[in-house]
Amino acid sequence: MKLLEDRILKDGIVKEGNVLKVDSFLNHQMDIDLFNEMGKEWKRLFEKEEINKILTIEASGIGIAAVVAQYFKVPVVFAKKTRSINLDGQSYTAKVESFTKKKVTDVIVSKKYLNPGDNILIIDDFLANGCAVNGLIQIINESGATLKGVGIAIEKGFQDGGRLLREKGVRVESLAIIESMDASTGDVVFRH
Amino acid sequence: MKLLEDRILKDGIVKEGNVLKVDSFLNHQMDIDLFNEMGKEWKRLFEKEEINKILTIEASGIGIAAVVAQYFKVPVVFAKKTRSINLDGQSYTAKVESFTKKKVTDVIVSKKYLNPGDNILIIDDFLANGCAVNGLIQIINESGATLKGVGIAIEKGFQDGGRLLREKGVRVESLAIIESMDASTGDVVFRH
Repeated sequence: MKLLEDRILKDGIVKEGNVLKVDSFLNHQMDIDLFNEMGKEWKRLFEKEEINKILTIEASGIGIAAVVAQYFKVPVVFAKKTRSINLDGQSYTAKVESFTKKKVTDVIVSKKYLNPGDNILIIDDFLANGCAVNGLIQIINESGATLKGVGIAIEKGFQDGGRLLREKGVRVESLAIIESMDASTGDVVFRH
Repeated sequence: MKLLEDRILKDGIVKEGNVLKVDSFLNHQMDIDLFNEMGKEWKRLFEKEEINKILTIEASGIGIAAVVAQYFKVPVVFAKKTRSINLDGQSYTAKVESFTKKKVTDVIVSKKYLNPGDNILIIDDFLANGCAVNGLIQIINESGATLKGVGIAIEKGFQDGGRLLREKGVRVESLAIIESMDASTGDVVFRH
């Protein structure tokens, strides 16, 4: 998606350790107009799928998923990363390791909100090693719901997550795939 | 807001310990149509304020704020609850105690995204003791930005947060204010 690629080139900052900072528009400050354009694009890509629910994971996926859901006219469920007293035990759990936070977290979805017959689109901001998406897929499988596809804003194409998902037959639609990036020059090269 | 009150009466569940579960439509599964109606109502209420940014806090505030921001045509900044390697030290920090999670967390906003001259609307899902909102106000004050108001989906009117904020002169617009609720009967009474 050229709009997103251009925005990454304009406002993204490449840091050491394969970190791409896009917190000025994607995952700290959020450009809602951009999220709307992303929603239109995913709707175009997944037009033929009868999606009835979007699943994402806190925190950075939530804003994107909420805006994008308007194009699918469906509710969003976000997987929670900590057990709060608002969750009453009847939940699916998967372990997820965050690339940026370097720690393993339990992600939790209440059993009430994923059911057999649900056709799910996963939305998230980043795909790197795929841990978050794989955790969500594990939860979807456990619930008996059907995964229709995965919509990612920015995929780090030089990490394994996207390739492994596609090899398993999962449809992954990443709006920008980074082929390579260089912290010393700030250069970002996209895959097309 | 009658639509939200009716939804609380229909789908909210009162639990022991002054907990109101609204995770079927507000803060786990999210009803995006409802969020749009909330956005229209806050836009009506804050129409005369020249708001240029919405500030919220992860995780449950993010989806509401992202949808609501469309009516104000402004970006959203969400305060983060854990320090990740994506935040580079140039940030405002406040301590916040979660009512439902019973723990103190640092909330963090990058200094880049709050500036003198910014006119801020805070949006969040719940107001109980006011800790989260007070943490955000502390951060806004530290940044030199101006707080124009606070939009809350559900205020627990029997806790002190809303009263103390209003006594300090903060404009708080809660779309549903709970006067009392009873876990044994499931009854919820609203303040009007």
